[in-house]
Amino acid sequence: MTVLESSRPVPDALSPRREDKFSFGLWTVGWPGVDPFGVATRPALDAIEAVDRLAALGAYGLTFHDDDLFAFGSSDGERRRAIDRLTSALSANGLVVPMVTTNLFTQPVFKDGGFTSNDRAVRRFALRKVLRNLDLAAELGAQTFVMWGGREGGEYDSAKDVQAALERYREALDVLCQYVIDQGSGIRFAIEPKPNEPRGDILLPTVGHALAFIETLAHPEMVGVNPETGHEQMSGLNFTHGIAQALYSGKLFHIDLNGQRGIKFDQDLVFGHGDLVNAFSLVDLLEHGGPDGGPAYDGPRHFDYKPSRTEDAEGVWASAAANMRMYLLLRQRAAAFRADPDVREAMVAAKVAELRKPTLAAGETYADLLNDRSAYEEFDTGAYFGGKGCGFVALHQLAVEHLMGAR
Amino acid sequence: MTVLESSRPVPDALSPRREDKFSFGLWTVGWPGVDPFGVATRPALDAIEAVDRLAALGAYGLTFHDDDLFAFGSSDGERRRAIDRLTSALSANGLVVPMVTTNLFTQPVFKDGGFTSNDRAVRRFALRKVLRNLDLAAELGAQTFVMWGGREGGEYDSAKDVQAALERYREALDVLCQYVIDQGSGIRFAIEPKPNEPRGDILLPTVGHALAFIETLAHPEMVGVNPETGHEQMSGLNFTHGIAQALYSGKLFHIDLNGQRGIKFDQDLVFGHGDLVNAFSLVDLLEHGGPDGGPAYDGPRHFDYKPSRTEDAEGVWASAAANMRMYLLLRQRAAAFRADPDVREAMVAAKVAELRKPTLAAGETYADLLNDRSAYEEFDTGAYFGGKGCGFVALHQLAVEHLMGAR
Amino acid sequence: MTVLESSRPVPDALSPRREDKFSFGLWTVGWPGVDPFGVATRPALDAIEAVDRLAALGAYGLTFHDDDLFAFGSSDGERRRAIDRLTSALSANGLVVPMVTTNLFTQPVFKDGGFTSNDRAVRRFALRKVLRNLDLAAELGAQTFVMWGGREGGEYDSAKDVQAALERYREALDVLCQYVIDQGSGIRFAIEPKPNEPRGDILLPTVGHALAFIETLAHPEMVGVNPETGHEQMSGLNFTHGIAQALYSGKLFHIDLNGQRGIKFDQDLVFGHGDLVNAFSLVDLLEHGGPDGGPAYDGPRHFDYKPSRTEDAEGVWASAAANMRMYLLLRQRAAAFRADPDVREAMVAAKVAELRKPTLAAGETYADLLNDRSAYEEFDTGAYFGGKGCGFVALHQLAVEHLMGAR
Amino acid sequence: MTVLESSRPVPDALSPRREDKFSFGLWTVGWPGVDPFGVATRPALDAIEAVDRLAALGAYGLTFHDDDLFAFGSSDGERRRAIDRLTSALSANGLVVPMVTTNLFTQPVFKDGGFTSNDRAVRRFALRKVLRNLDLAAELGAQTFVMWGGREGGEYDSAKDVQAALERYREALDVLCQYVIDQGSGIRFAIEPKPNEPRGDILLPTVGHALAFIETLAHPEMVGVNPETGHEQMSGLNFTHGIAQALYSGKLFHIDLNGQRGIKFDQDLVFGHGDLVNAFSLVDLLEHGGPDGGPAYDGPRHFDYKPSRTEDAEGVWASAAANMRMYLLLRQRAAAFRADPDVREAMVAAKVAELRKPTLAAGETYADLLNDRSAYEEFDTGAYFGGKGCGFVALHQLAVEHLMGAR
Repeated sequence: MTVLESSRPVPDALSPRREDKFSFGLWTVGWPGVDPFGVATRPALDAIEAVDRLAALGAYGLTFHDDDLFAFGSSDGERRRAIDRLTSALSANGLVVPMVTTNLFTQPVFKDGGFTSNDRAVRRFALRKVLRNLDLAAELGAQTFVMWGGREGGEYDSAKDVQAALERYREALDVLCQYVIDQGSGIRFAIEPKPNEPRGDILLPTVGHALAFIETLAHPEMVGVNPETGHEQMSGLNFTHGIAQALYSGKLFHIDLNGQRGIKFDQDLVFGHGDLVNAFSLVDLLEHGGPDGGPAYDGPRHFDYKPSRTEDAEGVWASAAANMRMYLLLRQRAAAFRADPDVREAMVAAKVAELRKPTLAAGETYADLLNDRSAYEEFDTGAYFGGKGCGFVALHQLAVEHLMGAR
Repeated sequence: MTVLESSRPVPDALSPRREDKFSFGLWTVGWPGVDPFGVATRPALDAIEAVDRLAALGAYGLTFHDDDLFAFGSSDGERRRAIDRLTSALSANGLVVPMVTTNLFTQPVFKDGGFTSNDRAVRRFALRKVLRNLDLAAELGAQTFVMWGGREGGEYDSAKDVQAALERYREALDVLCQYVIDQGSGIRFAIEPKPNEPRGDILLPTVGHALAFIETLAHPEMVGVNPETGHEQMSGLNFTHGIAQALYSGKLFHIDLNGQRGIKFDQDLVFGHGDLVNAFSLVDLLEHGGPDGGPAYDGPRHFDYKPSRTEDAEGVWASAAANMRMYLLLRQRAAAFRADPDVREAMVAAKVAELRKPTLAAGETYADLLNDRSAYEEFDTGAYFGGKGCGFVALHQLAVEHLMGAR
Repeated sequence: MTVLESSRPVPDALSPRREDKFSFGLWTVGWPGVDPFGVATRPALDAIEAVDRLAALGAYGLTFHDDDLFAFGSSDGERRRAIDRLTSALSANGLVVPMVTTNLFTQPVFKDGGFTSNDRAVRRFALRKVLRNLDLAAELGAQTFVMWGGREGGEYDSAKDVQAALERYREALDVLCQYVIDQGSGIRFAIEPKPNEPRGDILLPTVGHALAFIETLAHPEMVGVNPETGHEQMSGLNFTHGIAQALYSGKLFHIDLNGQRGIKFDQDLVFGHGDLVNAFSLVDLLEHGGPDGGPAYDGPRHFDYKPSRTEDAEGVWASAAANMRMYLLLRQRAAAFRADPDVREAMVAAKVAELRKPTLAAGETYADLLNDRSAYEEFDTGAYFGGKGCGFVALHQLAVEHLMGAR
Repeated sequence: MTVLESSRPVPDALSPRREDKFSFGLWTVGWPGVDPFGVATRPALDAIEAVDRLAALGAYGLTFHDDDLFAFGSSDGERRRAIDRLTSALSANGLVVPMVTTNLFTQPVFKDGGFTSNDRAVRRFALRKVLRNLDLAAELGAQTFVMWGGREGGEYDSAKDVQAALERYREALDVLCQYVIDQGSGIRFAIEPKPNEPRGDILLPTVGHALAFIETLAHPEMVGVNPETGHEQMSGLNFTHGIAQALYSGKLFHIDLNGQRGIKFDQDLVFGHGDLVNAFSLVDLLEHGGPDGGPAYDGPRHFDYKPSRTEDAEGVWASAAANMRMYLLLRQRAAAFRADPDVREAMVAAKVAELRKPTLAAGETYADLLNDRSAYEEFDTGAYFGGKGCGFVALHQLAVEHLMGAR
């Protein structure tokens, strides 16, 4: 029994339920602790144990890369046995596979990338590997196919023609979309951006770059993003802002939640164990950022984290539980924040909702605006000096106090 | 006479000429040295002196914010006199105004932004200010209108509805594009991204985010980006990669060159005084990254830098000259790099050009690829272990040696 | 009335009291909002109003730079009037001046620094300015004299002989220490590190560099550090770790509390409005990190923050109050964390206290250790694979739950 | 034959010679390419081949961790055979072992560190492992024993008592120093700082922190630092500044040269393939920063880099050669920079040497300074506004031009 479970009955609102849609990557709880300066500290985790334990903890879904489930280069028979074994366990536990992803980064063949390797033979091999994995995703009923192009990039500017690389990336996506259309599986793709590590610079380094790239595809409607908390924060970007822009573009197809403590290597901490204040605003956005104040996103809450290398199996499962508990705690805090009359008053003072109101009135043209002397000639800009304070700090203090359970 | 000009005849290839299209912001050489912890160290620079000196140094263009030329709140008469005085000086010196930009960030009225202020009256005022400045841009024959939304953003997540802010940003751009269409000036807009400073988080923080946003506009063809070296590097991103993606999207409408030494406050150093290796690959891309190996960009080479606060007037003009000299030196080095047979051989070894070749053959479908056993079933992935080295380090060493004039 | 004060009686434990030793810089609440891209949004704040308001909010101390109180270049009479006016107000309100600091960074004369300017005449002037301000510090009964050398540094490596600069820094400190010894005021110096901004690179960039420098002085016992939350976090360093090393070295003479959201420009947010989890561990260290579990530091809790430029006077005072409330909330949470039996159990599991136990037994020598076969030859290193988990994640989850008031 | 060696006779000044004191870690050229997201791309490199190839390339020394040479847990016989095999090869090639280091980070037993593990039994084991390796260092005639405490640190503030950890670190160093004193080997220790990776926060994160820690030891004179280019730059710090402070403190016992492109994961690129401008000023400091303008450091130029994972054996040796060539090229450029009369003139204008001159005259006291009206009362601070420019940009431009071979 872990410390987390020890001392008191957990209140219902903090117990994960299937409808919370918590999912985990098989590679997360299964991470053995190999890092750039250390060998494994834990033995391999069997996929069946992962399914059983995650189900018991309250998760609803499992995700994986092809190479997580069966070793690269497996025979057809080995592959099939691994798949069947997994599907039995999933079925026995009532877990689903909402997302499948592919591994174009671990093996030496992908040392310069998959879809954008300078070596055309590698690009062809990568396409074949993904096409095969798309069949598996369809077989398992996954709705989303995530693509993290961790090796698509470079260290040396002269060695990579980035314009050409983006053309090849597009070519690959276009082929894959056509395949999905023809197969009729209804799968959608989600690109996962990351700025660096393992490559010195990775292509499509942020949510923004991925969103822009998608617009150049033959089937942009089939492709969205899978932002990861830590990946955006590795560029010093505000993750909540990135998610908001993905929502604005209608492209939040999936999300990877975890924790990161600033600009450094990819930490993959438990969700909420990184920038807690930003995690609060993220959950608030996901749960209350819709047009009516309801959820802005209803897909899986997917944890892509690594149980710290210091932990043994008990610590692995405590960390898995901690991800879900952090989400639920933050959801609870966000609900209270939204319901607090003092918060509502502070939001009015800060004119937060006024930003939803169009700048021009209904039917107003720029010509009308140019004729509105109150908008310019008679507008009192001087009133904003020493007055017309925005009230942002007071509102933020209320947010932090709700996060801290202090109101 | 500055040290730079002192001792020997400058070779011709390093003397700026009008056809090099070097331009400077009036606010750059005119920066008096006010920073967050210090008052001005230099007196105001008269616009006429700026024009005269820049022309003498070899620049071809001058750019400005409205508020650089005439103080915020100027009367119509004051504004007109400042404009006329400038145009006379430009005309006398043969300088052009290829770009005009607007200031929605200095005054208290814009403390929460212009187009995305929570305060609707401010948004209306901001639109009016920009419409007026568009008239001036058209009058002066500018082709590009840059928009740096430095105050569009926030410090506190709860205080800014980012989805709504992007809607208001779009509304503003849509109005402005319509105005330009109706006026027939042919002006194009260029959004300048920046991740932070002065706001804690600025909207459209990177080239990628801006490119993605543009695709949501009513007239995306009229809007591109104006990336600034230091702004991308403040997020730890590779500037050359960002420019390559902008070119891939057909959106490099303008460029701001300067220097930045890593992730910190916005330094605005002289171009090449920041990350020199990246500056080399950037110039190489701009000059040789086109489809035929020719220039990938033919617009102004615009320096948006600040002469260090330690310098007096002599240092200001030495720094202005240094920007152009750095560009010309790097252009010279890049040309030698491209011409070197050893480099060409190393590029073949690194398969750089192979990335231009489509992954599928002409007319090949995914069905054909699935039937190509050489692409997968018979593909020797093992050969990439201990073999099939990419040769990237040797190529990069050649690049650095060319940069250093060592070959 | 601000939102913060509005709706309910504040519980006693969260009301600032004089014994909490909260102090503020005059330049903090008095910041008018000038930033690199904007003019003031607020009028100057009179020092007397600052004293009155801070006293009413519960602060116990005020601090200032010489130039905050009287303009640079003031006559003796102007200076004296400003001082007397302040001391009257302080006395009327029962506020003390626990710390005074000096300004060697705002004026043009200091554009290349004060103690380490390349210009010897500037160095001499800087010494005189500080000697004079030391007299004022002694007159006001300050115990600590803070030195932030924000202009001591450079942008260009060739332009600054750093070894020589450190020699001049040392020379200055040695002179000032001797002066204090001779005057008998008992004042101690505290160096405030910062990595950059306004200079590209500032000397003594982190707590570590300052601690190391101090050991080279003639009177190291008189000089300690004044770490600032955001300054360490601007280098991506863990502030709590830095404070712990300062305590380990016996050098935490003063502390500057504020908030920073990662590696970027110096934000100076309200304490706790930056990295909240690190703020929790910091308060826990200050309050419970002593040898007996009691306070590890008993000096002023000094807030060196800036009220956001978006705020008017109401927001200024709301932000001042928020600093103290955040500290008190975190102190309350840390006390509950330390008192929780589950936490104590988790700390035992994580062997936290075992690190206080020397590695060698009392009297044990390396020869004894070499003869202890259980330490090496018979030590079971294999048990650490798949076992001997550290239990760190579970402990951290408890910490976060206490921070969130969820236990 | 690599591209680097291909086309022309290398000028003598750029051919590595033994007296250049270039050394390499066995783990550098031997790195097989395992990274957080990829398996090895190259087979293991035999130590003998490493010695032969490095000798042929012109290196003078080889360094290693115990675990590089013989696997963790080797029997005494296996260990001896590996050592003897290496010493034969070294002797045959005339290579020396100027430095040995120890591995307290790879194995599971060290998952929470070695000297500062919360687990006392691990700390005792770590001490034994290092004592044994010190014997080997003495046997091989190494002058320096480097300690990189990559696992000494944490991810979770509550789980590590940093004050206690520093006490244990000190205890370990004190024991080891005493051992060396008693053995009479004359070995000196060099602490290698790093801010993070593999731990979230590593103790002694920068050169400054390590220097400060050393002063708390029983034998500070026996312990210095081994700064690594990339490690300091991972905190955004100026490496040349850090080296200058280490020299100022008399503590530059060893140095690790490599390349890093900003604040991100530890890249370990070839020296000069990171921040080239800073590499130039570093070599200039090492070669010309002594009191007489001669070398400021005469120890090994040790390359601690990783041949990129994209490379095969040919690329490995090309990258090894590139490190030395970069150093020699930079040394050549620095010599020309120092010899250029224009540079000397610019240095005088920038008053660089004036910083070596004490601020007080010989024998001058603060009392004398207080009586010098020219220093304060009559000092013209106004002359620094609009005048008294520092000339730093012009000097830097000369430096960059020398770096580029453009003068």
